[in-house]
Amino acid sequence: MASIVLAMGNGKVLFGGGDAADIAAVPDRDLVTMVDPEGLNINAFDLSVLRGDGIFEATTVWKGYPISLENHLRRLAHSAALMDMPAPNMAAFTRAVDLVIAAYDDPEPGPLLRIIVSRGLDPDTGVGKASDGTPTVFIFLDAKGSLHEIDPITMASMTRGYPSDITSRAPWLLNGAKTLSYAFNCAVHRECARRGVGDAVLFTEDGFTMECPNSSIVARYGDLFVTPDPSIGILNGTSQRELFAWAIQEGSRIEYRKLPIAELRETDRLYMTHGGWVIPVNELDGRALDYDPAEIAAINDAIHTGRTHDDALTIGPR
Amino acid sequence: MASIVLAMGNGKVLFGGGDAADIAAVPDRDLVTMVDPEGLNINAFDLSVLRGDGIFEATTVWKGYPISLENHLRRLAHSAALMDMPAPNMAAFTRAVDLVIAAYDDPEPGPLLRIIVSRGLDPDTGVGKASDGTPTVFIFLDAKGSLHEIDPITMASMTRGYPSDITSRAPWLLNGAKTLSYAFNCAVHRECARRGVGDAVLFTEDGFTMECPNSSIVARYGDLFVTPDPSIGILNGTSQRELFAWAIQEGSRIEYRKLPIAELRETDRLYMTHGGWVIPVNELDGRALDYDPAEIAAINDAIHTGRTHDDALTIGPR
Repeated sequence: MASIVLAMGNGKVLFGGGDAADIAAVPDRDLVTMVDPEGLNINAFDLSVLRGDGIFEATTVWKGYPISLENHLRRLAHSAALMDMPAPNMAAFTRAVDLVIAAYDDPEPGPLLRIIVSRGLDPDTGVGKASDGTPTVFIFLDAKGSLHEIDPITMASMTRGYPSDITSRAPWLLNGAKTLSYAFNCAVHRECARRGVGDAVLFTEDGFTMECPNSSIVARYGDLFVTPDPSIGILNGTSQRELFAWAIQEGSRIEYRKLPIAELRETDRLYMTHGGWVIPVNELDGRALDYDPAEIAAINDAIHTGRTHDDALTIGPR
Repeated sequence: MASIVLAMGNGKVLFGGGDAADIAAVPDRDLVTMVDPEGLNINAFDLSVLRGDGIFEATTVWKGYPISLENHLRRLAHSAALMDMPAPNMAAFTRAVDLVIAAYDDPEPGPLLRIIVSRGLDPDTGVGKASDGTPTVFIFLDAKGSLHEIDPITMASMTRGYPSDITSRAPWLLNGAKTLSYAFNCAVHRECARRGVGDAVLFTEDGFTMECPNSSIVARYGDLFVTPDPSIGILNGTSQRELFAWAIQEGSRIEYRKLPIAELRETDRLYMTHGGWVIPVNELDGRALDYDPAEIAAINDAIHTGRTHDDALTIGPR
């Protein structure tokens, strides 16, 4: 029984050409190779190891359904473009994910899927100097790691150190790309542990709300759901768009805009979204926030059963 | 003949207790294991791979002499502290480096040494959840990758996006730690290639000089050598301290301070320092800069023959 599936991808196909019909003709074994997740499976001179020089996506596979997969793959392509990497082949990645899901066999209904792509072997090393730049790709589906919870969490706000206009002025900061360089994100979570809060929401030096270290943030004011415009230098949230799709279906309104952190603190309700889940926030910077467990259950059910899927594909900042 | 030596370290010893005598009694095989550098040697769920969550140091081993090793290991310990990682055992790391050097056998006199440490297997994954947090350590010595040059280079200045007071206010940004999350540093080098310059020097949003993506910067005004104070949120340069030691030995003066980027542009001479080398900069933001090849050769010779070693250990910001 495979509770943890680890597939090494063929970078030449996954970042190669070909339309859906071409990709459908590729034998499984030329797309991914299943390997022992407990073994040694990466070379030490890979740029993921040495530099965190790569990109990734993560979501939940709920009862065999990879939540928001198209939006995740679109964001992977966006990250690749921001990182000057080649464009992923969407059909090939979709098939590779399907093969990983087919190899999974565990009673857990919601394992975590992660797609990891590095720039390949480091050409500045002896081992990598003959590299043609083919990305290293691997995909895993894991029932045995930390899985998502929908218990309410507490949150503190912290500065990200950047002004809100930096992304257009300094694209080399890679704001908006989901890179493998997550040491900062990990450090914020350690700071949360020190402060005794569940997670953090980051803000710019001039006081605008950004995102959480590995989540998006949505505030609700009456029947209006608001999230920061990604142009401030944050990710375009995938689960956040599923939540927006739910809100519209329920007759509420949605808005992308620059959201002062002071205004976030006055929200009626606050939602943290990631990996196919919407999680209620019941405290921000010491102020208690109301939440409705039935509403949270309904939102997650709508996302997990695919009810919000099609609408989420059409939602985004203007 | 080993032109590329790759040693997997024993994290329990390298981050364990014991003084120099205890460490001297550890059998070689319990300290490091030499592995095939071309093979698979890292698990995909290591935090170096998934999160860039670790630290590193790099220097040149010149004719068997690891340049600035103590200062590199001290900085590794400083990075570990900033990252809430355990403290490295200096004696154990020194012996491990010696074992790697002993296994090297190539005519190249100046291979690159790199020490890589991650936080270990990711405890949020099924493969890593039983991890006791023992760091993953590997060390390589590479004669076949890109080696250092002392040809003069051109340079452009770019914003780092942060204000100069951010480090004391937001330690979770990890400024001053040499982490494995180098996607930004790699992106700056791609931006340099786009602009047709050799490297970049970063500055704060309020206009103070910081460092280069993988180097320190030293400006010379008459007989005064100036480098930015590391408290601005940059690394404490190792080769930069060797250069300062050389300057003092030659009767010049040194200074750590906040250095406006506008003032850097008016320097008499400019030096980029990294990995045991001092490299002349012959152009900054389009302004040509004078340099003296004989001086550069003399500085590097002093560093590589150990003449500056002892003094460099005592130099630093006050």
